[in-house]
Amino acid sequence: MKVKINGRSKDIRTVSYNEKLNQVCLIDQRLLPHKFALINTKNYIETAEAIKNMTVRGAPAIAATAAYGLAQGLCEFKGNDINKFRKHTDKVFQTLKNARPTAVDPINAMNRVLWWMNAGETVGELKSLAVLGSKLFADKSVEECKAIGVNGEKLIKDGMRILTHCNAGWLACVDIGTATAPMYEAHSKGVKFTVFCDETRPRLQGASLTAWELAQAKIPHYIIADNAAGYFMNRGEIDMVIVGSDRVIARTGEVINKIGTYTKAVLAHRHKIPFYVAIPFSSIDWNAKSSNEITIEERDPEEVLGVWGMVKKTASKKRQIIDEYAYVRVANPTTPARNPGFDITPPELVTGIITPAGIFKPGEIRNINKILKSA
Amino acid sequence: MKVKINGRSKDIRTVSYNEKLNQVCLIDQRLLPHKFALINTKNYIETAEAIKNMTVRGAPAIAATAAYGLAQGLCEFKGNDINKFRKHTDKVFQTLKNARPTAVDPINAMNRVLWWMNAGETVGELKSLAVLGSKLFADKSVEECKAIGVNGEKLIKDGMRILTHCNAGWLACVDIGTATAPMYEAHSKGVKFTVFCDETRPRLQGASLTAWELAQAKIPHYIIADNAAGYFMNRGEIDMVIVGSDRVIARTGEVINKIGTYTKAVLAHRHKIPFYVAIPFSSIDWNAKSSNEITIEERDPEEVLGVWGMVKKTASKKRQIIDEYAYVRVANPTTPARNPGFDITPPELVTGIITPAGIFKPGEIRNINKILKSA
Repeated sequence: MKVKINGRSKDIRTVSYNEKLNQVCLIDQRLLPHKFALINTKNYIETAEAIKNMTVRGAPAIAATAAYGLAQGLCEFKGNDINKFRKHTDKVFQTLKNARPTAVDPINAMNRVLWWMNAGETVGELKSLAVLGSKLFADKSVEECKAIGVNGEKLIKDGMRILTHCNAGWLACVDIGTATAPMYEAHSKGVKFTVFCDETRPRLQGASLTAWELAQAKIPHYIIADNAAGYFMNRGEIDMVIVGSDRVIARTGEVINKIGTYTKAVLAHRHKIPFYVAIPFSSIDWNAKSSNEITIEERDPEEVLGVWGMVKKTASKKRQIIDEYAYVRVANPTTPARNPGFDITPPELVTGIITPAGIFKPGEIRNINKILKSA
Repeated sequence: MKVKINGRSKDIRTVSYNEKLNQVCLIDQRLLPHKFALINTKNYIETAEAIKNMTVRGAPAIAATAAYGLAQGLCEFKGNDINKFRKHTDKVFQTLKNARPTAVDPINAMNRVLWWMNAGETVGELKSLAVLGSKLFADKSVEECKAIGVNGEKLIKDGMRILTHCNAGWLACVDIGTATAPMYEAHSKGVKFTVFCDETRPRLQGASLTAWELAQAKIPHYIIADNAAGYFMNRGEIDMVIVGSDRVIARTGEVINKIGTYTKAVLAHRHKIPFYVAIPFSSIDWNAKSSNEITIEERDPEEVLGVWGMVKKTASKKRQIIDEYAYVRVANPTTPARNPGFDITPPELVTGIITPAGIFKPGEIRNINKILKSA
């Protein structure tokens, strides 16, 4: 998507790979919306750390990052011993997988890279195939988001007010986004609509990232406190909800997504407001029998006890106003917090799943391959 | 309630009145939980400002503040002209009323003071009666909270996990609190329970004030993001919800309270978790036909776009860590926010209203006077 950098509009992907330097290039999302900066990870450990510390976040974006990270890690390997290389491959895979244990996308993405590597035998061939596989994965990811946009765009009518939660935008993907893809597509066709962005505590991805994205694209939008969505629904000021998902369980149709998604689905259900989930194929979990098998991360309590933001301070000598990125403590100092990162929305609360292949009922996802073949 | 000040435990009311100096004394709640400080307003304009800028907040606390503010404003009057005094009374009343247009408590409180003043004729008598009336109002408010505690305490059993939203604690009242009153009463009887405090964006009264209060009283508690309550309910980790209310409409049983209350009621209803609202009599609106008549404040968008908190900074010369209370901007700089302060919970989502006279169904509130007379 286009970003203005030093006054010039530039097309940027959220994550890309520099083959010559064996570096993964990422937008540092922790600095947005205050500062736009790119960082290059020098090795796969740094790439895993970037996934863990949320330099990069969003299911499809961390999928591509893990795919690139796997290729990067394999290219770091010295020598030609194929057995040592296989062991090294396992280590890199596990390190990248463990960076975000709740997510299924990095696993799917890296398995796709491993599938490409089946065609190779020597260490050199395997490295080349890993690089090729990771690049094809990222390109396919962009194509999927484009298709989500085309399929979901029909849902958006002139005058609609759409609620979204967290950031399932292009910053969460390689490009275009999932929940935002129908919005960008509708906007490009001249449809007029307004987006309500839940701020999405504790990490405020809605207030910072989704709002920043929509502002870049000049789509009218507001930020609201997570507490306010029910109020606006009750007043008839929300016509549709579109969110992304970290993992949709094919067998049950359950949707695992950022904490607070379930609450919005319950509210939408009460007010008979359509609730859509937009996902690429990599977010479908084909293995789990149900959500009971999934570990929900409890993240660092400090995320709830305080907030990162831009503080304006006056430098004492020159009386300049200096912006400084800082953590402020908001909670009572002696109180602990509990901080689950995700919640589970049952299929009966979901109107439809917007995929690159069309819009399906949650219960149809398990048969999506059959549906696609018979189509 | 007891607060440790300079190592010594002291009994403090949230709001009190100094007759000699004609000052209203308030805990500055904007500084909590980081700093405990008392402020004295010098005139009724400052008292109204303290209500408006949320130095004091919470329905019963602003009720007592308005009652004291009215007495203070009337005592400021110079001269003996009864007609000018009546006009002045109107002006003071309107100024204090307009400081929080959504609240009914200040109006009820000041009407109570005016009722006491009916017995007077001269300016001097009217001033004395205003002071007496405001003090009696505050004392009665404390008695009501005590009674709410006694009535609600029976609901709390050993091992329970109770969710509360915003701050309906003693900081929101003259003393003891409304939603917290049953908790303090149960705690004093040795009942063991845990409280989940919604952080309550945008102003974070749960994370700052309720958590601070419960920590003072040594009641086990956690802070959670507003987004997380649905998750914990779904996992069976919440047994009951108790909140306060700014206004319960007698004719309909509708509950007007801090933004986000409605969402918690919808979630509790889905999970068959009892949802209680604790109020003093002054929070009952006897006049409104329904919530349609009530103006819901849309507050300053900056509340949503940023956060006030304590930032740790290192002073450059001495390398000391200095705590500084600061506003940090979290949202995208070019995005607007919408910030409704309250929402409306319909009676069908409310299990019971805990009042000083007992626990009633929302539909019974309109007949509460009859019920009390026949008892």
